[in-house]
Amino acid sequence: MSKKNIITPRTLSGFMELPPQEQVLFERIKRTLEETYQMYGFFPIDTPVLEYSEILLAKSAGETEKQVYRFNKGDKDIAMRFDLTVPLAKYVAKNYSAITFPFKRYAIGKVYRGERAQKGRFREFYQADIDIIGDGSLSIVNDAEIPSIIYTIFTDLGLTDFTIRLNNRKVLNGLFEMNGLDENATDIMRIIDKIDKIGISATKAELIESGVAEDIANTLIELMTYKDTNENILAKLETYTGKSATFDLGYQELKDVVYYIGKFGVPSDNYRIDLSIARGLDYYTGTVYETFVNDHPEIGSVCSGGRYDNLAEYYTKKSLPGVGMSIGLTRFFYVLNEYKYLNTKLNAPADVLIIPMTDDMSSAVSISARLREEGIRTQIYMEKKKFKAKISYANKLSIPYAMFLGEDEIKEEKVTIKNMYSGEQVTVELKEAIATMKKSFAELGQESIIK
Amino acid sequence: MSKKNIITPRTLSGFMELPPQEQVLFERIKRTLEETYQMYGFFPIDTPVLEYSEILLAKSAGETEKQVYRFNKGDKDIAMRFDLTVPLAKYVAKNYSAITFPFKRYAIGKVYRGERAQKGRFREFYQADIDIIGDGSLSIVNDAEIPSIIYTIFTDLGLTDFTIRLNNRKVLNGLFEMNGLDENATDIMRIIDKIDKIGISATKAELIESGVAEDIANTLIELMTYKDTNENILAKLETYTGKSATFDLGYQELKDVVYYIGKFGVPSDNYRIDLSIARGLDYYTGTVYETFVNDHPEIGSVCSGGRYDNLAEYYTKKSLPGVGMSIGLTRFFYVLNEYKYLNTKLNAPADVLIIPMTDDMSSAVSISARLREEGIRTQIYMEKKKFKAKISYANKLSIPYAMFLGEDEIKEEKVTIKNMYSGEQVTVELKEAIATMKKSFAELGQESIIK
Repeated sequence: MSKKNIITPRTLSGFMELPPQEQVLFERIKRTLEETYQMYGFFPIDTPVLEYSEILLAKSAGETEKQVYRFNKGDKDIAMRFDLTVPLAKYVAKNYSAITFPFKRYAIGKVYRGERAQKGRFREFYQADIDIIGDGSLSIVNDAEIPSIIYTIFTDLGLTDFTIRLNNRKVLNGLFEMNGLDENATDIMRIIDKIDKIGISATKAELIESGVAEDIANTLIELMTYKDTNENILAKLETYTGKSATFDLGYQELKDVVYYIGKFGVPSDNYRIDLSIARGLDYYTGTVYETFVNDHPEIGSVCSGGRYDNLAEYYTKKSLPGVGMSIGLTRFFYVLNEYKYLNTKLNAPADVLIIPMTDDMSSAVSISARLREEGIRTQIYMEKKKFKAKISYANKLSIPYAMFLGEDEIKEEKVTIKNMYSGEQVTVELKEAIATMKKSFAELGQESIIK
Repeated sequence: MSKKNIITPRTLSGFMELPPQEQVLFERIKRTLEETYQMYGFFPIDTPVLEYSEILLAKSAGETEKQVYRFNKGDKDIAMRFDLTVPLAKYVAKNYSAITFPFKRYAIGKVYRGERAQKGRFREFYQADIDIIGDGSLSIVNDAEIPSIIYTIFTDLGLTDFTIRLNNRKVLNGLFEMNGLDENATDIMRIIDKIDKIGISATKAELIESGVAEDIANTLIELMTYKDTNENILAKLETYTGKSATFDLGYQELKDVVYYIGKFGVPSDNYRIDLSIARGLDYYTGTVYETFVNDHPEIGSVCSGGRYDNLAEYYTKKSLPGVGMSIGLTRFFYVLNEYKYLNTKLNAPADVLIIPMTDDMSSAVSISARLREEGIRTQIYMEKKKFKAKISYANKLSIPYAMFLGEDEIKEEKVTIKNMYSGEQVTVELKEAIATMKKSFAELGQESIIK
């Protein structure tokens, strides 16, 4: 046919491109996130993938800056967004007078980083962020709502054994203050942040090397590694109050957050104070979160965030404190898929495949319209193929029901439906077939995306 | 506070960035499209925004090529996708052996064209495509399913007065053949395509100028502008059969498509054969569609598509015929918004705003969890502000219900709800409040997005 040269079709490395049935699962997870964010009253916000480089790189971003996709188009110096936070900051500063605060927004979108390509690392990936931005101030109860959203999402997806780890940067800074370590705070925070990875003795050695006295290093490490109920950790922290205003404020915030998380209905097994959570970035100023799947700590945090004082300091003089969190959706999906945690029973693009057995397909077409009205995702196999090929199509796509429409069925105003899992096959009136299938779909609907 | 230099926040021109409440409406429209595509059994497919330039520009794209965002990253020549069809072709060719055909896929994603910026023209815009790809062949009934999907979408959105105009390129090519105009077919098609814009006499003049004899030009124009019922147009076309195999095939296809569209339940008012619809691209080889809002023909086609013989001829020697359509979602939304067609009653981010009147917010928090379980999108106003500021927040966000929780309510285990539209306010048990609100939301849920 075509005499053209064929170019080998290929995709850039580091760019996820899923097979059809995996994409169905990806969309289900994405949809769960969207629905949860909406349930808490967050606005969807969609900002451009491209921005002026000057805007995106207002904060010299170090490592990130080297990874940015940046180019000229006409006389414009343009870059692709590398996260959803910088565009949010621009958006809020730009639309300040049109926004009603507190401003709750979610964003699920692709971001770009030219990282070194390796397994499980992506150059184009989805982030799924929520943030609550105040105008001048923002209630601490918001800091408790975020973990409740994290809990709802992971529970809805089917995960149960996960822990949201909580801390407060003011507690840490206060501890440093009362030990005369204010000036080393950033260094110490960075060392502490690695404690899970490098272990206690290496952490202690690094602390001492950075100028911390041995007894203070011991105290800090004892606190950071202190595991107990939230009540007992708070009681222990209370014994340190009265020495640093920063610490006292942090202690009160942490106490409030723990109190309200419970009120939001999050079971106490799923959140716990962990004084070693520091979150490297100097961006955070209060509450910080990380979320771990208990069986797989090696995955690292699947959802992180915290409280910050100034969202948009590079674009406005307004004080815009906020609290938020981010899920690295592409990486999260990749890991779930690698571990075979995904429920492949939910990866079909349709609920039923109608297989017409006559040349005229008008009965199949009319019935398909009827099924869709009932909310049943319906496909018709329209090609002239042997029966085996038709039924194999339903099998390959794991469509749970096949519906056969032969001359007999059409004459008797009935349909034959086959449950593709059980093999059970019945010839009944359409109304009964719909009821049978709906019951089966309702059961399937109870299954979670993560096994 | 901050002593940093402030960079004026701004967005690149030609990039849509909506205010929060308009974004809610945009997402509702996008969701309607997704749900409809899923209801017909289409797979979601998500391909990268970035591809090798060699892949994206395999078909020298003329005007398009100049508009492409193209740059080097490392040693790679990269471009941003300018449509969703080329990435689909690459995807199908690349994954051919893993795909079960016919392959039904939808894609809703951003594409990029550096067009001259002007009002209503966008450089970053969403396309919302569906395609059905066959392996070697594809039943004509698929060509009837596409208009049924278009009909479902626009009806669900609230449009009723629209017309899907249908034609078949083989009918046109056959007519040219039988008039000895085979070689001029592309030119003639282009001229005919403009008939709605330039009018009959200018079209006739252009046809004659391009070498068409006057009597043939008259015959062609008479057919192209022939308005009648689908049955009568088909009857008229039948009188031309027997002279060209191409025409006869096209006539039969058009007849089949019209027959099955009716079976899909599309009312005859909403689709009509229009022999002037040619779709400029030489890509299409059979059925072609355009969709017009009857009161606003000046908008142009809001949804177009058709049948093609070779999806992926640049990437594979396999014959992959398909049929599909595309909605230019960003432009569609822009036009609806400009004409004030959007239902602003549906632009709230939440269904109810809980306004706590006590310092301790634990009752509000517990109740919010309960409301969300009932599927009610719930926000709590947590900030310490005057009552007026709190109620004004609900007003500004057009949240339909406010719920007040004062000491009395908490003591009596009741809640006060206020319908923000009617002003009606009652103090009742939570259960009753939920029932009242749900009834009201169900009514609101009946309203369509387009007024």
